[in-house]
Amino acid sequence: MNAFMDNDFLLDTQTAKVLYHGHAENMPIIDYHCHLSAKDIYGDKKFRNLAEAWLGSGDRCGDHYKWRALRARGYEEDSISGSGDDYKKYVQFADSMPYLVGNPLYTWSHLELKRYFGIEEVINSENAKSIWDKANKVLETLTVRGMLYKMNVQTVCTTDDPTDSLEWHAKMREDETLKVKVLPAFRPDKALNIEQNFFACWINKLADAAKKPIKNLNDFCDALAERIKFFDSMGCKLSDHSLEEVHFAPCTYDEADKVFLKGLKGQSLTCEELDKYKGYLLIFLGRQYAKRGWVQQYHIGAQRNNSKRMYGKIGPDTGFDCMGDGSYISKLSAILSELDCDGSLPKTILYNINPRDNYALSTLAGCFHKQGVKGLVQLGTAWWFLDQQDGLHRNLETVMQTGLIAQSVGMLTDSRSFLAFPRHEYYRRILCSMLGKLVESGQYPASELPVLGKIVEDICYNNAKEYFGF
Amino acid sequence: MNAFMDNDFLLDTQTAKVLYHGHAENMPIIDYHCHLSAKDIYGDKKFRNLAEAWLGSGDRCGDHYKWRALRARGYEEDSISGSGDDYKKYVQFADSMPYLVGNPLYTWSHLELKRYFGIEEVINSENAKSIWDKANKVLETLTVRGMLYKMNVQTVCTTDDPTDSLEWHAKMREDETLKVKVLPAFRPDKALNIEQNFFACWINKLADAAKKPIKNLNDFCDALAERIKFFDSMGCKLSDHSLEEVHFAPCTYDEADKVFLKGLKGQSLTCEELDKYKGYLLIFLGRQYAKRGWVQQYHIGAQRNNSKRMYGKIGPDTGFDCMGDGSYISKLSAILSELDCDGSLPKTILYNINPRDNYALSTLAGCFHKQGVKGLVQLGTAWWFLDQQDGLHRNLETVMQTGLIAQSVGMLTDSRSFLAFPRHEYYRRILCSMLGKLVESGQYPASELPVLGKIVEDICYNNAKEYFGF
Amino acid sequence: MNAFMDNDFLLDTQTAKVLYHGHAENMPIIDYHCHLSAKDIYGDKKFRNLAEAWLGSGDRCGDHYKWRALRARGYEEDSISGSGDDYKKYVQFADSMPYLVGNPLYTWSHLELKRYFGIEEVINSENAKSIWDKANKVLETLTVRGMLYKMNVQTVCTTDDPTDSLEWHAKMREDETLKVKVLPAFRPDKALNIEQNFFACWINKLADAAKKPIKNLNDFCDALAERIKFFDSMGCKLSDHSLEEVHFAPCTYDEADKVFLKGLKGQSLTCEELDKYKGYLLIFLGRQYAKRGWVQQYHIGAQRNNSKRMYGKIGPDTGFDCMGDGSYISKLSAILSELDCDGSLPKTILYNINPRDNYALSTLAGCFHKQGVKGLVQLGTAWWFLDQQDGLHRNLETVMQTGLIAQSVGMLTDSRSFLAFPRHEYYRRILCSMLGKLVESGQYPASELPVLGKIVEDICYNNAKEYFGF
Repeated sequence: MNAFMDNDFLLDTQTAKVLYHGHAENMPIIDYHCHLSAKDIYGDKKFRNLAEAWLGSGDRCGDHYKWRALRARGYEEDSISGSGDDYKKYVQFADSMPYLVGNPLYTWSHLELKRYFGIEEVINSENAKSIWDKANKVLETLTVRGMLYKMNVQTVCTTDDPTDSLEWHAKMREDETLKVKVLPAFRPDKALNIEQNFFACWINKLADAAKKPIKNLNDFCDALAERIKFFDSMGCKLSDHSLEEVHFAPCTYDEADKVFLKGLKGQSLTCEELDKYKGYLLIFLGRQYAKRGWVQQYHIGAQRNNSKRMYGKIGPDTGFDCMGDGSYISKLSAILSELDCDGSLPKTILYNINPRDNYALSTLAGCFHKQGVKGLVQLGTAWWFLDQQDGLHRNLETVMQTGLIAQSVGMLTDSRSFLAFPRHEYYRRILCSMLGKLVESGQYPASELPVLGKIVEDICYNNAKEYFGF
Repeated sequence: MNAFMDNDFLLDTQTAKVLYHGHAENMPIIDYHCHLSAKDIYGDKKFRNLAEAWLGSGDRCGDHYKWRALRARGYEEDSISGSGDDYKKYVQFADSMPYLVGNPLYTWSHLELKRYFGIEEVINSENAKSIWDKANKVLETLTVRGMLYKMNVQTVCTTDDPTDSLEWHAKMREDETLKVKVLPAFRPDKALNIEQNFFACWINKLADAAKKPIKNLNDFCDALAERIKFFDSMGCKLSDHSLEEVHFAPCTYDEADKVFLKGLKGQSLTCEELDKYKGYLLIFLGRQYAKRGWVQQYHIGAQRNNSKRMYGKIGPDTGFDCMGDGSYISKLSAILSELDCDGSLPKTILYNINPRDNYALSTLAGCFHKQGVKGLVQLGTAWWFLDQQDGLHRNLETVMQTGLIAQSVGMLTDSRSFLAFPRHEYYRRILCSMLGKLVESGQYPASELPVLGKIVEDICYNNAKEYFGF
Repeated sequence: MNAFMDNDFLLDTQTAKVLYHGHAENMPIIDYHCHLSAKDIYGDKKFRNLAEAWLGSGDRCGDHYKWRALRARGYEEDSISGSGDDYKKYVQFADSMPYLVGNPLYTWSHLELKRYFGIEEVINSENAKSIWDKANKVLETLTVRGMLYKMNVQTVCTTDDPTDSLEWHAKMREDETLKVKVLPAFRPDKALNIEQNFFACWINKLADAAKKPIKNLNDFCDALAERIKFFDSMGCKLSDHSLEEVHFAPCTYDEADKVFLKGLKGQSLTCEELDKYKGYLLIFLGRQYAKRGWVQQYHIGAQRNNSKRMYGKIGPDTGFDCMGDGSYISKLSAILSELDCDGSLPKTILYNINPRDNYALSTLAGCFHKQGVKGLVQLGTAWWFLDQQDGLHRNLETVMQTGLIAQSVGMLTDSRSFLAFPRHEYYRRILCSMLGKLVESGQYPASELPVLGKIVEDICYNNAKEYFGF
């Protein structure tokens, strides 16, 4: 029997221990995709207590993994995401902890207590108060920047709307006391989501940001290009797209422009029109990214806002999303191939939300290459609901069996929480466990351990540094 | 090397043994969804021999898992599901046994011999006759009720058509000698399946049962509500739907009524019409269930009667079904959300037949909640073809990683066989094995074992008792 | 720690060792589906060096698994599939080897070195030259026929177009020095692919081969029947279909003929027309196969030629294919059922490329039977991208849980490479490992080991011999 989450947690072979402690553990963290607040980093935010750090400050902005668990427990929403009493919220979570057996929250929460707060206890109802006191004591001095330093975070990429002024990023570039690199990333979902009712309104915001009137699709593309140029000047190296479905159909400029103008007027669009418009825009943007040497990310297949009741009450991104089950490999292939045809396919990371798509997506990624580039298109690390032991294991297995794990850019948190960084540790332990088993079962020679150690370091840090150009 | 199916079968850690023998083994069984015959329980049926108990009485009604295996072996149908000689049928199955290596039938059959008949031997051609004799000897006194008592079954829910008079259930309510609770469950598939040729005929049956003429959709809904009231008065706590595909489209009463009337006349219906009608009816029924405090079950995705030749010969539910591969998460979400909007989403269990949908369905379930209810919507335990080691393991893993296994209502047999109850034992052993591994690999603290033992008891029994309100 | 790929590689229990060394290891190989060149076998081709044997001769024909890995490494195409220097190609591959950790190429390449060349070293940059020299020395005398003999290959089925004259097969039938049975297999993809622009041209070729003019669908079917008769006379026992999607709709002769004539004229066809034509033809062909006692194979779901750029440069089957994610169980069921209805469903092997379809396809296979035939329809062994440890494991698991592994016809290479035969060894080791675990975990009795040993021999060899009638 192994002790609970000790130093060798998940390291189930001697080789895994050597790989982790000798190679993975001390590599800095590059968190190349997350949703941290640039403002909070610049302002070096302080949390008022563990409830705020874990469950948010009552403004419906916080860790929706924990919220989902608390809702499933039957607690009232106000004491979950709302303005309920902080201590009550926290105690409900502590009370729930034993019932999270097998859930990644169990591991994450304990890792968070250990790594940020130095608390080694098992959380439950009985010691909830004493852990609350200890953690809050730590939070008196542990600010957001301190958390990043403590976790050995070297680079963070936030997620930003094209209309964003990046004012906090600008201030951080001037701030010599900041010891972590914080870069913006370009997320033009609102440019793609022409069917949503805020489209015309957002176009106006974009026109303002780009200081150009937008009368047609060409104007629109110019404005986007302008913002890409601006983001690039601010150190941006990545874009990101959330594609709930993948749309594509061959399309001329005039066809796409016609759909754009309908969208501007708020007219309803057919699926074929969405295929044309969205396909056209993804191709346009891909070419822009390629020109700048950016990496593009596609996050594919989420089905959002399933409870319309709760969407009406507390809005999007609050824990009411699930995995979709649509088919998309064929249209996605067409997009990548069209970009590939004239050499303007940027480095691309494909993330699937539904694990049943692991294999198809990884084999599609393996169809696109560029001389001199390692892993031009690659399957991203397990995303969202899959960011747990089973999900990570199967994602890594898929990459190993159908691609080159040695070239993977590794882990990212995709998180809104400053306490999420131990997930890098979690990933690294699982990675080392899997590689260790390959060695100890005779599938990879122990004589190659020095190379394998280097490969582990690459996956943890070097590959991302090189691939993104940080 | 472990001995073959001994006392610690599948319990591969010390913790698993403690959890199983100390907490799971002796909990009573609540089989909240099965297809047992109320008539047979009331009449305390006696099987003429092991062939009848295992393979049916020759009336095409029996264990289709075993039938499929025998067909794949190339035997003639008459000696499988038909009127062939009992002993010949049995011997064919015994002869086939060694070739079922890795198939759940191997484990199930031996568990059945052990638990009901006290036979500890390994079945094969050589000892077929002696096992036959021993088992038949036991069957002289072991009736259907005796089987239920022997297996520690406390509650059984049968599966009943809305037109059913529930006469055997009524008699059982009066029978003080019966020491197991047998309740009806409401399965209105024929109300949904408007496209099938027996629809109009079934509507007539329903009108008779409800003692109301049915001229339009309102009449029809009234009649269904009447039957729900009647079932409720007979102790019913659950409904069940087999949804081969999930249909839904927003729809007014008039639209749905129009489709209903077309269906009554046997006119052919478009997919859009089916979406409207079936969606409308599921919403109506869901509200009814919520009103009664019932739990609704959706069994999703079976593709039935694949061999038209055999369907013509021996009818449905005889072992010619498979998993479908359609998409349904989006429409299912719309149904649950519409019920959720006005607070009339009943407790709901979602079962997928295709394991590739485990994760999507579990994450969808996690989007719907009600204050004060633990696990309002939950992923059901592995169903049908998945009711085996791999299927159960992945189902449990999915619930753990994306939900709260501690709140699961656990195992059910969904079986037509009185010999199926050891599958609860099988499930419990696999559950304890998985939880044991979490503890022994340092993912859950050994110090919390008392709570974990209680959680095991909850999953085996208490959760179902509370959730269904037995 | 196990030694790297030693004699007990992957045999992780004592029982696995007994099963493998005592039963699997020495069974001859029947490679019932591959893409080896009949001409090369007849001509007893000699490879000029290890680069040609491993990576092809520069004519874009070779091992696309290795090509994909080298492209992902960023090498230039000319030194991968093209006319680049042989030694440079080889060295790039040797340099890449350590970075293939976890990929099946790592295992395959080392198995190839061991089994064909007697080289026990771990390949890397440092010993690349010495391995090159040793292997080339061996290749001076080790011809293609020698490779087949060395691997204990008894029977090979090639893959042949219906228009093929089978001249090399004819010569081999006369060649008494040839000690391996080489049979043709009938692959009429071009007959099905009516939407492709070479259709009319291919019809002309077929008319020439069949010595009959083809004016309509009847003529076409007659010509195909003629070729089937010819293939049959040349010892053919199998057909094979690559179905990217599965098409089917009920259809009369006249309807199908109309589509056929449109296709001949190069007119574009709707999806419904493809459903009719392709469904009609598959039914026709299935009946022909049944008449001849052939086995039909359906390889389902590949999405080919994803990079249009590379397709334009180097053509099909060069490593730019992936798994598709379409749904097909319903249409496939209809085809099998229609053949089943009049007793003309031939033995059928269904292969899925996307592992998410394992379970659905296996349960569909289990719906069709014929008295006296063991495993009439069965799930094929893990195909293409799945021909690796994880893919094989899950495929075997699926067959075990939902079918009868004891009746499986076992492994095939589907390969274009004469060096691919150790994949049979790989499969056998994984099979024995899985069966060994069943025994040692108490799920299958050790007392039945003699039967289990026989079952292993059956899966490795006897089942295929009996099923195909070699």
